[in-house]
Amino acid sequence: MLAREVLEELIRVLGRDNVLTEQEDLLTYAYDATAAMKHHKPDVVVAPLTTEQVADVVKIAMRYHVPIYTRGSGTNLSGGTIPIAGGIVLSMLNFNKILEVDQDNLTATVQPGVIIQTLNDEAAKYGLLYPPDPGTVTTATMGGSVSECSGGLRGLKYGVTKHYIMGLQIVLANGEVIRWGGKTVKNVTGYDLVALFTGAEGTLGIITEIIVKLIPAPEAHKSLLAVFDDLDKAGGAIAAIIRNKIIPATLEILDNVTIQTVENFVHAGLPMDAEAVLLCEVDGYKEVVQREAVLVEQILNDEGAVQVKIAKDDKERDLLWLARRSALPALAQKRPTTVLEDATVPRSKIPDMLKAIRSIATKHNLQIATFGHAGDGNLHPTILTDEREAEEMKRVHLAVDEIFETALALGGTLSGEHGIGIAKMKYLDREFGEAGVAALRRLKEALDPNYLLNPGKIVRRD
Amino acid sequence: MLAREVLEELIRVLGRDNVLTEQEDLLTYAYDATAAMKHHKPDVVVAPLTTEQVADVVKIAMRYHVPIYTRGSGTNLSGGTIPIAGGIVLSMLNFNKILEVDQDNLTATVQPGVIIQTLNDEAAKYGLLYPPDPGTVTTATMGGSVSECSGGLRGLKYGVTKHYIMGLQIVLANGEVIRWGGKTVKNVTGYDLVALFTGAEGTLGIITEIIVKLIPAPEAHKSLLAVFDDLDKAGGAIAAIIRNKIIPATLEILDNVTIQTVENFVHAGLPMDAEAVLLCEVDGYKEVVQREAVLVEQILNDEGAVQVKIAKDDKERDLLWLARRSALPALAQKRPTTVLEDATVPRSKIPDMLKAIRSIATKHNLQIATFGHAGDGNLHPTILTDEREAEEMKRVHLAVDEIFETALALGGTLSGEHGIGIAKMKYLDREFGEAGVAALRRLKEALDPNYLLNPGKIVRRD
Repeated sequence: MLAREVLEELIRVLGRDNVLTEQEDLLTYAYDATAAMKHHKPDVVVAPLTTEQVADVVKIAMRYHVPIYTRGSGTNLSGGTIPIAGGIVLSMLNFNKILEVDQDNLTATVQPGVIIQTLNDEAAKYGLLYPPDPGTVTTATMGGSVSECSGGLRGLKYGVTKHYIMGLQIVLANGEVIRWGGKTVKNVTGYDLVALFTGAEGTLGIITEIIVKLIPAPEAHKSLLAVFDDLDKAGGAIAAIIRNKIIPATLEILDNVTIQTVENFVHAGLPMDAEAVLLCEVDGYKEVVQREAVLVEQILNDEGAVQVKIAKDDKERDLLWLARRSALPALAQKRPTTVLEDATVPRSKIPDMLKAIRSIATKHNLQIATFGHAGDGNLHPTILTDEREAEEMKRVHLAVDEIFETALALGGTLSGEHGIGIAKMKYLDREFGEAGVAALRRLKEALDPNYLLNPGKIVRRD
Repeated sequence: MLAREVLEELIRVLGRDNVLTEQEDLLTYAYDATAAMKHHKPDVVVAPLTTEQVADVVKIAMRYHVPIYTRGSGTNLSGGTIPIAGGIVLSMLNFNKILEVDQDNLTATVQPGVIIQTLNDEAAKYGLLYPPDPGTVTTATMGGSVSECSGGLRGLKYGVTKHYIMGLQIVLANGEVIRWGGKTVKNVTGYDLVALFTGAEGTLGIITEIIVKLIPAPEAHKSLLAVFDDLDKAGGAIAAIIRNKIIPATLEILDNVTIQTVENFVHAGLPMDAEAVLLCEVDGYKEVVQREAVLVEQILNDEGAVQVKIAKDDKERDLLWLARRSALPALAQKRPTTVLEDATVPRSKIPDMLKAIRSIATKHNLQIATFGHAGDGNLHPTILTDEREAEEMKRVHLAVDEIFETALALGGTLSGEHGIGIAKMKYLDREFGEAGVAALRRLKEALDPNYLLNPGKIVRRD
C-alpha cells in the first residue's frame, strides 16, 4: 500500500491525468503476455511525458523506497513486466515519437514508446530497414524490445536487437540522466553501457531515448518451403546451406505437431504428415537472390527433402510466412494455456534438441509442439496445457526443467530472446554457476543498490 | 617492490621459467605503442599456461594486494598496458592456440594470445572470415583486440570487434572462472557480460578463451581511388554513396599532408596536390561488386572528383591499400614523436571535423596529418612532433584537447577504437558528465573492488 505522500508527489510532478489509481486500471497492468504467471496489481500507474518527469518519478520512488516497473506494451514472455512487489508501474507509452531518421548516418532516433513496426514504416520511406523482427513487431515498443533484446525471424543474417542499438539516454536509479553511445559506428569510450542496458529488462536504468542503426532495405527476396520426413535430414539441410556459405535472412522450422495445427488454422498447403518443414527466405540484390534461391533449392533436394517449393509470387510468399507467423496463435487455440519457451542451442544441435523435446513430451505425457528459428538455433518448444490442472502443471514444470537442462547440455543457453524475468531466474546458476550469478548481482547493485528498478527480475537480493 | 613471498608463490604456481624478474626483461614490459607516455617497469612478468594458473595468479595478487596488468602484444595506443603502479604483468602469449573452427555454427574458439591474422589465415582455409581488421592485425592478439574492441578498416560494412564476440571465459578479480555467452547467435540470459568485458581494457576480468563469429568470405572485391580538390566535395561523396544505399567494405580518406608523405614513402601514384583522396572497396558476390563499383564510380564523378580510378587488377588494388596502410609508418618517419588520435564523429560530420583539425593545426603551429575511416567517422589526426621539445608538447596537448572538444561538439566520441587507457581518462567526464563517470566507477568496483586489474585505466578510484 502506497503512502499518501507518494501519490501526492507523483500527481504534483505528472498532473492528475497521468497518474492512474482506479482498480480497473491497475488490473490491466497486473500481468504481461507470459502464461501461467501469478498476477500482481501495482499501487499506481504513471505515464510521464518527458525525461525530466521520469527522473522526478525515480527520485520520488527512491525517497520513499517504492519499486518502479517500467513498461511498454507488456508483450514480454518471461514475466518481466509484472509488478510483483507492488509500487509504481511506469508506462512509457507517451514517449511515442520518432525524433529523426538520419539518412547520412543510417540512424534513427526514437522514443521508447514507439511501436517497432511504426519505426519500420518510417524507415521504409527512405528505403531503409530496422532488421530486428520479433513476433510482436506490430505491438511491442522499442523500449521493451531494447530492454529484452528481442530476436525474431532475421537473427541468422542480420543479428538481433543489440546489434542495432547505438545510443541510449538512460535515467539511472539515482535519478541522474546520462547519454551513452551515439551516432558513431565506432565507440570505445568507457565500458559499453549501451550493450549493458540492452537486454537488462529494465533492472539497471530506464531508457528514455534510443538511437538505432538502420540498413538499406534489401531490394529482392525469395522464399522456399522444404518438406522432410526425417528430422535429421532437416538438420542436415540447415548445416548444408550454411556450409555452402549461404546465410538466409530467415530459416525456420516447424515440427509435425505445429504443421498440423497451423494447416488446420490457415490452410497454407502444408503437408499434414511431414516430420518437419523448413521455411527459408534469401534476400539482397536481385542477382544474388536468384543465385542463392537456386542453390538453396538444390541443397534441399540433395539433403533429401521430400518436396521443395519456391514461392512464385508475393501471394505465395505471404501465405508461407502467414503459416509461420500463425504457429503460436494456432497452437494457443488448442488448449487454455500455452507455455512458450525459447531454449536455444548452437544451430548444429537443432536435430538433437528436437528429438530430446519429443522424448520429454512422451516421458511426461504432454503435448509439445516445436517451431522456431532453426537458422540461429532458437527453438520455441510450446507446451499445450491448462494451468487449472494442478497435476498436469507439475508435469509441465518437470518438462520445462528438462528442456533447459538439455539446451545447456548441448552448449546452448536458457533464453535466446524472451529474457530471464521471473520465469527463468531459478535456472540461472545452472548456466553461470553461483559465482556467475553473484557477479550479475554485483552489477545490479552497482547501478541499483536498493533494488527499486524492476525488482525480482533476473537477480534477486541475496 | 614486491614482497618475496609473492614471488615465491608465483614461482610455485607457474614454475621458474614462466616468472621473469631480470631488469632487461622488465624493461620491455614498461611501455606499449602509445607515444609520449611515461614508462613504468613492472616488478615481475608472469606467463601462465592454463586458465587455472591465471586464476592462481589472481588469487595470489588478491591476497597480497598486488596489481595485475594483462598484456598481449602491447600494440595498444592509449597506454592501456603500461603497469603504472608496478606489480605483475600477466603475459597471455602462451595462450596461442586456435581451439576450433566450427563450420556449421560459423564460430571459432581461440585462446587470447592468438594473433588476429593467424585466426584469419585459419578461417580462410574454410572460406570464412573474421572481419575486424585493425592496423595491427599481424601483431595484435585476439585478447588485446577484444579488450580494446578494435575497429579498423571494415567497420562501415562489417562493424567492429564487439559485433563478433559471442562467448568469453573470464577469470574474475576474485579468482572465479566463468563462461559467458557461447555459440548461439541469440542469447539474452542475464546481463550481456560478453559485451561488458569486450572493450573493458582488462579492468574487469581476464579473458582466457574467446568464441568469435565468422562469416563467409566475400568472393569478390573491387577498389577505387578518387581524388578531390575540396574537402566538402569529398564529404559530399561519402554521403552520396551511403544515400545511394551502397555500404562499401572500406571507405578511407587521406588528407593533403598524408597524401604527400605517403606518396614520397611508397610511390603509389597518389596526386601530390590533391586536398583529399578517398579509397573505397566494395566486396561480396561478383555480380554485386560489379554493379556497386560502377555506381560508386559514377557517384564520385557526379560529386566532383577530379579523377576516379578503378584498380584493374590485384596488383593495382594492393598498391592502393599499401598506400593506405603506409600512412602511419610514413608519417612516423617525419618527426621523432607521432601522436595518433582517434576522435570519432558521425560520418556526416567528416568535412567539419577535417576543417576543424586544420584550423587547430594552424592555431597551434603544429603539423597535423589526418587520415582514417571516413565511412564510419573514425579519423586519425596525427600530430608530428618531438616529445623532447617541452614548449611544442604544450601546444600538442592544447591541440589534442581541442580535437576532443570538437569531436564531442559534433556529436562524436573520445575514442572510436583506441580505448581510454591512461591517455583519455581526463576527458571522460566531458562525454558522460560526472554522474556518468561515477556509474562507470561503480561497475568497476562491482567486479574489481580493490582495483587490482589494470588499475589506473578508464576510471580511477574516487
